[in-house]
Amino acid sequence: MPEETVAASGLVERIGLEGSLLHYKAGETKLTKEIDIPNHETGLKQITQFLMDKEVGVVEDEKHIQVVGHRVVHGGKSFSKTVEVTEDVKAKIRNLFPLAPLHNPHNLRGIEVAESVFPEAKQVVVFDTAYFQTMPQKAYQYAIPKKFLEDHDVRAYGFHGTSHKYVSEKAIEYLNEKGLPSEKIISVHLGNGCSITAIKNGKAIDHSLGMGPANGLIMGTRAGDIDQSVIFYLIDKLGYTAEEVNNILLKESGMLGLTGYSDMRDIEERSAEGDENCRLALYINGYKIKKYIGSYIAAMNGVDAVIFTAGIGENSSVIRKIALEDMEYLGLHLDHRKNDVRGKTIRPINSPDAEKQILIVPTNEELEIAKQSYALVN
Amino acid sequence: MPEETVAASGLVERIGLEGSLLHYKAGETKLTKEIDIPNHETGLKQITQFLMDKEVGVVEDEKHIQVVGHRVVHGGKSFSKTVEVTEDVKAKIRNLFPLAPLHNPHNLRGIEVAESVFPEAKQVVVFDTAYFQTMPQKAYQYAIPKKFLEDHDVRAYGFHGTSHKYVSEKAIEYLNEKGLPSEKIISVHLGNGCSITAIKNGKAIDHSLGMGPANGLIMGTRAGDIDQSVIFYLIDKLGYTAEEVNNILLKESGMLGLTGYSDMRDIEERSAEGDENCRLALYINGYKIKKYIGSYIAAMNGVDAVIFTAGIGENSSVIRKIALEDMEYLGLHLDHRKNDVRGKTIRPINSPDAEKQILIVPTNEELEIAKQSYALVN
Ligand SMILES: Nc1ncnc2c1ncn2[C@@H]1O[C@H](COP(=O)(O)OP(=O)(O)O)[C@@H](O)[C@H]1O
Ligand SMILES: Nc1ncnc2c1ncn2[C@@H]1O[C@H](COP(=O)(O)OP(=O)(O)O)[C@@H](O)[C@H]1O
Repeated sequence: MPEETVAASGLVERIGLEGSLLHYKAGETKLTKEIDIPNHETGLKQITQFLMDKEVGVVEDEKHIQVVGHRVVHGGKSFSKTVEVTEDVKAKIRNLFPLAPLHNPHNLRGIEVAESVFPEAKQVVVFDTAYFQTMPQKAYQYAIPKKFLEDHDVRAYGFHGTSHKYVSEKAIEYLNEKGLPSEKIISVHLGNGCSITAIKNGKAIDHSLGMGPANGLIMGTRAGDIDQSVIFYLIDKLGYTAEEVNNILLKESGMLGLTGYSDMRDIEERSAEGDENCRLALYINGYKIKKYIGSYIAAMNGVDAVIFTAGIGENSSVIRKIALEDMEYLGLHLDHRKNDVRGKTIRPINSPDAEKQILIVPTNEELEIAKQSYALVN
Repeated sequence: MPEETVAASGLVERIGLEGSLLHYKAGETKLTKEIDIPNHETGLKQITQFLMDKEVGVVEDEKHIQVVGHRVVHGGKSFSKTVEVTEDVKAKIRNLFPLAPLHNPHNLRGIEVAESVFPEAKQVVVFDTAYFQTMPQKAYQYAIPKKFLEDHDVRAYGFHGTSHKYVSEKAIEYLNEKGLPSEKIISVHLGNGCSITAIKNGKAIDHSLGMGPANGLIMGTRAGDIDQSVIFYLIDKLGYTAEEVNNILLKESGMLGLTGYSDMRDIEERSAEGDENCRLALYINGYKIKKYIGSYIAAMNGVDAVIFTAGIGENSSVIRKIALEDMEYLGLHLDHRKNDVRGKTIRPINSPDAEKQILIVPTNEELEIAKQSYALVN
């Protein structure tokens, strides 16, 4: 790709609701407009108008757009890499609606709109799950009747693949430059959604999220791992419906359920002010990350680097500290001073004499999608 | 306790069903009788008759029985140690029925029957959960709205506590005799139910089973850990009721679901004969154990000994091998020759020059209950 710069970026909020907002940014220009945006098509068309606007635009003619890169959350077992959109690809994304009811329908709609707005461009799809198709069966199969795998594709797929791929490749590049080993990487993505991946020789071999984006680490509003007995207790004894329980576990749990706040900045602030629920929630959260790191070190019989990324991973020194302190037995020594320094670039936070590396690696999913899309059509 | 010998043992099968069986063993005597046993009371009374029988009995007078030790599965947060039965204790066991609907009601019935059969004896209750009351909140609290913990006691309790306590204390005794450290123990109980406990300075600090005995390691018919998304998928998309899903996860999953067999001996045999499902299931099972061991090593920042117990833990060299091979980074070196030797006593199976100990420790829950009961009333 010639240059890895962002020419323009845009975001549409509250599609189909009152007070829809359109954000647009290009160079020094930064706009937010309240426009009536009844559906995704209008939204994308509005963004396009800004992109091609004489004053704030960056594209002279829509024909200059040669590739549109899309993110699709669920590629099931059909997609292990980035592909160009065909009718068959769209049909397969549609077949996966049951596995990702909240994401795939919108993702497909986005592709269709882009096809109509940029009819001459190539449409490329990057799947969030594709990166995990290298996981061995022992990592993705659940211990339930095997007909569910065979007949209904019930298994772990994984999510945040674009981010884990991007940051782990950045880390491997960095380690290689320094002459350090990079065969065994543990990638910790902590954003609104959180997940952790074990990466051996550049390939994902295990991952904390499963068939849906609900389990594993504790997230902003999602519970992460939970004993299934709790679900049946809530249904049988407390009278919730299954749908209500699912909703609780996805939208009212995690840090929000423990503290009343889902944003890590609020929680850290309140913990520092003495809020005991917030303090405890940070420990519950970090302890879970710590245990996943240990389990992946066991799975790989070692580790060369643990890397942290996304909003919390890159910025929360507190969570990193709780997850990594007292891990010397595993070769991990956090340098507390380095851990407390803010930054925007890839950087080590292990103590200089540590056996193993601990890195912060800023993620950039848009860039990864752009790179993969560019690579596919060139 | 004067002598740790079994004077007699008995077992009643198929209570309330056709073809009820009573097994009785004392010294050289070993009997199985088909008797009509409509309920628990009759069963215990029948056993008592054998116990006091002139020819095969071991007790001359029922007044000679001074203590009856009971196992109760769920002690909730009310019981952190073994107690003598009082009305209050019985009421509390009853209050816990919702948390252990399959176990506590029968356990309480057993106590009541014993009270009527041995009115002069003291009744003592050993709780399966008590051993885990030392777990810190970060290990037992789920990341769901905290009202569920506060108002409904939804949290992890743990099970197999009697076994974990017994074998870990045996291991600590053994290690101390050899002059080896024993501060950090990981206890792996693999029977029909399976669980793993992290034990620091003799106290449980983490454990794989939760509020019910369903999650964590893969068991004979229970799934162990599973992404909650799978549960909601089975309900929403495949049309199962919540009750059916619970049943599938408890009774048709685990090794049975993966292979068609729940008994580890059958599975090992078939795997050796080339059955691919059985071979894979052993790897899925052992891989899960391996990852839990890693997570508890992270939780304790080290390990002095990993101990294996119960039917599979004591006898399945295959599962131990899969769980422990390629764990040198964590200080664990299995001696394959020692691992393959059968035995009935506590024994090491690590290589002689290994940093850390790996032990097989035969469990004995009845002895533990007897010892605790004896200790309480003397
Ligand atoms: N300075 C900071 N300190 C702690 N947490 C932060 C900080 N900045 C952002 N975060 C947290 O990052 C999370 C969002 O991460 P992000 O990667 O942007 O999310 P997404 O998964 O939606 O891409 C929020 O919980 C937010 O509180
Ligand atoms: N020799 C053996 N090899 C492998 N597995 C064995 C062997 N003996 C017993 N087992 C397994 O032990 C399990 C039962 O364990 P046990 O501790 O007796 O159960 P429980 O949890 O009911 O007390 C069964 O799966 C059985 O197959």
